[in-house]
Amino acid sequence: MVTPDVPRARAGNMTRIAICAPATPIDRAVAAAVNAIASAEFPGLELAFHEQCFAQNGHFAGHDAERLAALLDCASDAATDAVWFAKGGYGSNRIASDAVERLKGRDLAIPIFGYSDCGYLHAALARHGIGRAVHGPMPVDIRRDGGTEAVRRALDWFAGGRSGEDRSADGAPAVAFNLTTLAMLCGTPLMPDLNGVQIMVEEVGEHLYAIDRLFFHVTAHLQGVAGLRVGRFGAIPENDRPFGLQPADIARHWCERSGIPFLGRADIGHDAGNKIVPFTLAALPARS
Amino acid sequence: MVTPDVPRARAGNMTRIAICAPATPIDRAVAAAVNAIASAEFPGLELAFHEQCFAQNGHFAGHDAERLAALLDCASDAATDAVWFAKGGYGSNRIASDAVERLKGRDLAIPIFGYSDCGYLHAALARHGIGRAVHGPMPVDIRRDGGTEAVRRALDWFAGGRSGEDRSADGAPAVAFNLTTLAMLCGTPLMPDLNGVQIMVEEVGEHLYAIDRLFFHVTAHLQGVAGLRVGRFGAIPENDRPFGLQPADIARHWCERSGIPFLGRADIGHDAGNKIVPFTLAALPARS
Repeated sequence: MVTPDVPRARAGNMTRIAICAPATPIDRAVAAAVNAIASAEFPGLELAFHEQCFAQNGHFAGHDAERLAALLDCASDAATDAVWFAKGGYGSNRIASDAVERLKGRDLAIPIFGYSDCGYLHAALARHGIGRAVHGPMPVDIRRDGGTEAVRRALDWFAGGRSGEDRSADGAPAVAFNLTTLAMLCGTPLMPDLNGVQIMVEEVGEHLYAIDRLFFHVTAHLQGVAGLRVGRFGAIPENDRPFGLQPADIARHWCERSGIPFLGRADIGHDAGNKIVPFTLAALPARS
Repeated sequence: MVTPDVPRARAGNMTRIAICAPATPIDRAVAAAVNAIASAEFPGLELAFHEQCFAQNGHFAGHDAERLAALLDCASDAATDAVWFAKGGYGSNRIASDAVERLKGRDLAIPIFGYSDCGYLHAALARHGIGRAVHGPMPVDIRRDGGTEAVRRALDWFAGGRSGEDRSADGAPAVAFNLTTLAMLCGTPLMPDLNGVQIMVEEVGEHLYAIDRLFFHVTAHLQGVAGLRVGRFGAIPENDRPFGLQPADIARHWCERSGIPFLGRADIGHDAGNKIVPFTLAALPARS
């Protein structure tokens, strides 16, 4: 059941954004703060936080079945104009295959919006042509320094604005992923065909040696892509000694070794400045 | 150049163990402590710590070229009876492809002994039938509680003893890897054919959610293996809330989802109790 924190009564010609948490939960203060911005500044948007956003089961926002059901509620409701993920954290990979099985064949064309761990769903849905994956800020980002701006950027996009989009790919096919999420996707049944696509990656909280290891892995898997762009790599933990290379150097090294074009920067990251990247694949997958 | 810390003059019928550091360095106190045990208890062993073991370049035990050269020195010397890796840490993946290119075709049959990050070399060499990968304690383990026992276990194996081997696979084809290392190997040109092989994994210092993510990834790649065994998962950092599953439960979950047999425990880990696992593949690869 989708809980209308903003009453459905307001929804005449409104754009309805259904919000669920496929990985970890948010608390109600986050929903209230995001609702307050939407109410004050985006009168054409109706935010519907699913009750599951606040569920907790160990690490997760409810059991796998509960998170899957909420996602299906949000995506399947004919009144939904976009699905917005409340938070990443870890766990959407556990429900991504089942979500595909349940959603394929429905000709779903709405945006599926979020980033970080939600990349597992972006990948799996993009592979099957279900909805349109969009990398961008989530409700939980309200907690960051500058988080109001991040949430406002997402809301503006839902309302039709496009000034919050990253322009680095200049219209070429492009996708954006958290680097660890992309590494874990590589070679799995969730991975879409990224041939001819620019891949943007960002990361947070990983040591430089781990970043090196992740680029080793993803570049071994990404033969045929149009190239790699690096977003921001935030909150890199101090090592016991300097690693000797920075993230962009590391990316360039592995791109050179693997013959993948290194394309420079993208304006994405685990931060309030995180720009929006609607996924565009080189060849649209058949809707299965 | 291999530095003979134990003088070559002692080496009549001795077993010569050439030691290098394909990832990160040790200090000389580690070498001295390991030499002391060997001298006192294993008179048939000659330990030759390559000077590169003590080199440092940023995170690594010397530049990639320096680490590669030391490995080739150790492996190529006709007097070498086994190559022993001094330490893991991170970095052997950066030289593994080049090591294979330089060593293939030489009919090298000596043990290549170590674990953790050295699994990249184990994989790449096993794929090409170069030497015999052996998972087991390294000189750096002398620093652990009980580390003398760990080092003694390796030295005893070099001297011909087999009581330090893990017996869980009961003679069936088996390999052992650090879980992160195996995850990063999956789908890369370093990965050997593990069809029909029991895979033992261990981990240290990873959150339970990261362990879950790693099992998601490796089980997607390991179709056709004989099954998975779990070693120890040490020093798991505290999360902000309980994850809800322990490592063996996580492994069982992903094995069930992917149709890979879960085979129970193995006696390996990032600890002094880490047992020895000589790699045996189901089909010996052609020596290339």
